[in-house]
Amino acid sequence: MQGKIALEEHFAIADTIGDSQVYARPEVWEGLKSKLLDFETQRLEQMDKHGVEYAILSLNSPAVQAIHDVPRAIEVARKANDILAEQVARHPKRFGGFAALPMQDPEAAARELERCVKELGFHGFLVNGFCQVGDENTVAYYDADQYRDFWQAAAALEKPFYMHPRDPLLQREPIYEDNHWLTGPTWAFAVETSAHALRLMGSGLFDRHPQLQMILGHFGEGIPFNIWRIDHILRKGRRGLRADREIGDYLRSNVHLTTSGNFRTPTLLSSMLEMGADRIMFSVDYPFEKHEDAATWFDSVHISENDRVKIGRQNAIRLFGLDL
Amino acid sequence: MQGKIALEEHFAIADTIGDSQVYARPEVWEGLKSKLLDFETQRLEQMDKHGVEYAILSLNSPAVQAIHDVPRAIEVARKANDILAEQVARHPKRFGGFAALPMQDPEAAARELERCVKELGFHGFLVNGFCQVGDENTVAYYDADQYRDFWQAAAALEKPFYMHPRDPLLQREPIYEDNHWLTGPTWAFAVETSAHALRLMGSGLFDRHPQLQMILGHFGEGIPFNIWRIDHILRKGRRGLRADREIGDYLRSNVHLTTSGNFRTPTLLSSMLEMGADRIMFSVDYPFEKHEDAATWFDSVHISENDRVKIGRQNAIRLFGLDL
Amino acid sequence: MQGKIALEEHFAIADTIGDSQVYARPEVWEGLKSKLLDFETQRLEQMDKHGVEYAILSLNSPAVQAIHDVPRAIEVARKANDILAEQVARHPKRFGGFAALPMQDPEAAARELERCVKELGFHGFLVNGFCQVGDENTVAYYDADQYRDFWQAAAALEKPFYMHPRDPLLQREPIYEDNHWLTGPTWAFAVETSAHALRLMGSGLFDRHPQLQMILGHFGEGIPFNIWRIDHILRKGRRGLRADREIGDYLRSNVHLTTSGNFRTPTLLSSMLEMGADRIMFSVDYPFEKHEDAATWFDSVHISENDRVKIGRQNAIRLFGLDL
Amino acid sequence: MQGKIALEEHFAIADTIGDSQVYARPEVWEGLKSKLLDFETQRLEQMDKHGVEYAILSLNSPAVQAIHDVPRAIEVARKANDILAEQVARHPKRFGGFAALPMQDPEAAARELERCVKELGFHGFLVNGFCQVGDENTVAYYDADQYRDFWQAAAALEKPFYMHPRDPLLQREPIYEDNHWLTGPTWAFAVETSAHALRLMGSGLFDRHPQLQMILGHFGEGIPFNIWRIDHILRKGRRGLRADREIGDYLRSNVHLTTSGNFRTPTLLSSMLEMGADRIMFSVDYPFEKHEDAATWFDSVHISENDRVKIGRQNAIRLFGLDL
Ligand SMILES: [Zn+2]
Ligand SMILES: [Zn+2]
Ligand SMILES: [Zn+2]
Ligand SMILES: [Zn+2]
Repeated sequence: MQGKIALEEHFAIADTIGDSQVYARPEVWEGLKSKLLDFETQRLEQMDKHGVEYAILSLNSPAVQAIHDVPRAIEVARKANDILAEQVARHPKRFGGFAALPMQDPEAAARELERCVKELGFHGFLVNGFCQVGDENTVAYYDADQYRDFWQAAAALEKPFYMHPRDPLLQREPIYEDNHWLTGPTWAFAVETSAHALRLMGSGLFDRHPQLQMILGHFGEGIPFNIWRIDHILRKGRRGLRADREIGDYLRSNVHLTTSGNFRTPTLLSSMLEMGADRIMFSVDYPFEKHEDAATWFDSVHISENDRVKIGRQNAIRLFGLDL
Repeated sequence: MQGKIALEEHFAIADTIGDSQVYARPEVWEGLKSKLLDFETQRLEQMDKHGVEYAILSLNSPAVQAIHDVPRAIEVARKANDILAEQVARHPKRFGGFAALPMQDPEAAARELERCVKELGFHGFLVNGFCQVGDENTVAYYDADQYRDFWQAAAALEKPFYMHPRDPLLQREPIYEDNHWLTGPTWAFAVETSAHALRLMGSGLFDRHPQLQMILGHFGEGIPFNIWRIDHILRKGRRGLRADREIGDYLRSNVHLTTSGNFRTPTLLSSMLEMGADRIMFSVDYPFEKHEDAATWFDSVHISENDRVKIGRQNAIRLFGLDL
Repeated sequence: MQGKIALEEHFAIADTIGDSQVYARPEVWEGLKSKLLDFETQRLEQMDKHGVEYAILSLNSPAVQAIHDVPRAIEVARKANDILAEQVARHPKRFGGFAALPMQDPEAAARELERCVKELGFHGFLVNGFCQVGDENTVAYYDADQYRDFWQAAAALEKPFYMHPRDPLLQREPIYEDNHWLTGPTWAFAVETSAHALRLMGSGLFDRHPQLQMILGHFGEGIPFNIWRIDHILRKGRRGLRADREIGDYLRSNVHLTTSGNFRTPTLLSSMLEMGADRIMFSVDYPFEKHEDAATWFDSVHISENDRVKIGRQNAIRLFGLDL
Repeated sequence: MQGKIALEEHFAIADTIGDSQVYARPEVWEGLKSKLLDFETQRLEQMDKHGVEYAILSLNSPAVQAIHDVPRAIEVARKANDILAEQVARHPKRFGGFAALPMQDPEAAARELERCVKELGFHGFLVNGFCQVGDENTVAYYDADQYRDFWQAAAALEKPFYMHPRDPLLQREPIYEDNHWLTGPTWAFAVETSAHALRLMGSGLFDRHPQLQMILGHFGEGIPFNIWRIDHILRKGRRGLRADREIGDYLRSNVHLTTSGNFRTPTLLSSMLEMGADRIMFSVDYPFEKHEDAATWFDSVHISENDRVKIGRQNAIRLFGLDL
């Protein structure tokens, strides 16, 4: 399929490139590094080759979220956004931007988001999960009270946000000890990100901002598979749940999924049957994943051509109001 | 459908009943308690009413796994197994048994398992996740080296085991702090149990014992939805994985799923497309779940009648060698 | 689900009621007859009971299509439409109308359609397959040249049409001889109607009128199941095909399906995967089918609630521009 | 996937090759002809290239079924079977045989079948739909009374039969007039073959011979999509149905499907959900279809590897008792 739009496509800057090294074997690191730092060569070439017309780019993970020194987090976010904005300006028909935000300082994050949307023309923001604040062991999740005003400001901008994975701090999830293979995209990413997303849904965030849209990668980090059970259990007792509606209601009203890194048909079917095809969007997760793997699967998966065009393109145009 | 067989059906004894109180609102606790302690009245009545011919019973959760005093764990396991054996002897056409095991002492656990299988006629064992050993903060997972001989002994008995959920210790998964609603069956059960199951699969356990069969409830605690991604990522680098084959190979060769507590068709479809209908089995999770919910869904879900008979009955007969 | 809209809901008038007797066992004929002749009692009661807010009504089958005396066909069509219009006027929030048309005379059919749409406010027309013209053995299908102007006029009105089943003339399909059980809704309806629908798609009709929309009942009369094969074969040789695009393109661009009389989940899934959820609409086929069967299945089938609302209601509102 | 087994793979002999010309455009006829007449060159090469270990071969269509001169039908069937047997003897690990039978003479057909099974080691028989008897306009379907003894004899041999398509006589299905593109594999094959298969199921054949197994190609010629509706309608009135059980019961107990010529995932899913994966088997329909199309799809379709091995190989081994 030509004209695809991809939404979880990463770049890095000098200040953040090191964060991605853990996700590459030594022998492939140089290649991955060069792809993360590149915009106009390998990236556009791969997009062209595999029918991706437009990509909304975002900073690598965890990047700003892991900079516990708050002024530096603010500075790196701004720098990354400016670098991205320059590339978007050079290729406005090929690249869009998600803002990186210094969530360590909610007020600064709101200001930076406003700048990114209003001045740089970005399409929303992407956060790499929780942030570390002040020291490396203090973490903040965005359902916390101190983010109330941030969400208010974010919702007012009427742009979606992407809740992207990062690894948990090991001391907070010791179950991965001696099982390093479970960390990162194998398993821990989904566990960490789904819990954060559920916390947001359960916090009443989408009651306060019913138009706000959250994007989850990797087909929802496992949530669609268990969404019925979540609500089935909660119907027996709310146990501190602060939301007005059922979790599945938010999933179907305030969440979009992408295909990033999970190019598997039964998982697509299960997600379509929970969410509908209007809330699923193509993505690659480049350069951690290959356009070839994503596109070979997606372009030929046996769904209706009508849904292929929605998932591959139209849903993103509608969600972001793209001029394509 | 008449003649169903159910595999995740719980009872409690006086020593363990208290463990289940956290999973019930105060107003329903007395009812749940009486159902857990009952064998012959409400249980058989519900089984009869909803077409469940035979149930393999198991102790509630976490029960023995949470008794960090090792001699007491051994004693309670033995007591529970004897009580269960008596009920099985009274109703051999209706009840079978899964052994509760004092995994705190692998050698004692192996001995108790042998006793349960050879003397009491049990069909295998059910563990409620990790165990606490010595003190409440010391945990053991069963991929650890000290369980090598236990697994050797268990495999020699040629019976399956059920990896059943328990909640993680909160200090080991602080992400649930202030979000009590995410604990237990809502979400934390699946996260905890899937990680443990993956650790076993990744440890080489099923290379050493290729005939050994692990049963997972709740449609595999989320694993089928992401199994393609797990292996896709691991193909890029093994990062300490100790298994000879891909995780999906073990899922398709050494794992069976049950429907317990996840009565949802898209989840069933996704699981069937990953595992095949031969490895899915009906279960209720009584009395935490209702026979009515399980059976109303399962008896009418639009799958082939051939698969309904497999999932509802035949797969269990084949796996356990039942004389029904 | 409340607020459902149903599209294949039949009534009869004195002149046509006899045509339906063949589809009822003697002991149920009186009941069926009374339901076909009724508008405001049993019909509204059933709609209310099962959450059907609005029904677009159509004459029974084959009715006008089987009246080979052309002037009489014209007269009966007009009479049926007037009777229906009166009911629609009495219950404008509950009933809409599909015109019955004397297809034996394409020009008269076009005139009657225009009258029905412009004067009576009908939503399009429903034809019961081929018509007999002049004598009972002369049949006309609507891909024939003499219907060119009719389609031109119909397309100009920008309303959909429903291609509804009728039985083939036995001498034209002797394979049902001695196998009466295969006629009618068991099997022959689908065979006859799918062939007619395919003829229309293959005739270039939708090339000339790319906005024209055809509705097929019973999940498309079998076409979605084999649509890939149809186009796969035609790619090897067109053998007289007169259409510009592939048959599947028309199916996805010019066809909507309804659930009438085929309340089966795997069939729904297969159709969704070929057509997308935007082109499937709830219907009952009352009074030949029961609201209870249709609604019990549809209201609980495990698809996304988003798709349930589309299929149950929104797609019809959009397609017909309903003011609901 | 290596080691696949294919079941609808055709050859021709000089006496029957002409029957296939209608299914090829002039420019490809010579190629098709050479493939039909070849056993050891192109056929084995394609099987090797696409992982097909073993193919049960059958004569082209309609061949013997269209030879209304009865003695000649008997003679051609015998000749074709002998030619096939010779090839099977030369390549016993690659080729098996389905008998061609002179169904014009049920007694001769039974004798030839017995010879083919007992002397030639064939795996059953394949019929190309109805046969013409005595003159070209007299047709016989195999649910007719004169086939009672034939079926008795066939069932006693405990081998399956393949009900393969042929085109209807045009005068018996005039709906294809002026729409030649609908004939043959596009649509008419499925219509004709499904009706014949349903007639057999409705005739009581499988009540008299409950172990008898019928194989249908092309995912059951549309039957799975509508099987629920068939039985739903028949529950309202049997209208001459002579079978003891529901049609769907026979479909799930006495029918196997193949993938021949219908390499489409939603169709596979729908069929699996009606029949279960144990009753679906890989086939190509060579040389009318390409191994490449069949294998490229089947080897990569996202079903469980467990089901892939069943459908690709194990089900055929079990059904035919193959020594592979
Ligand atoms: Zn990513
Ligand atoms: Zn349980
Ligand atoms: Zn109807
Ligand atoms: Zn064939």
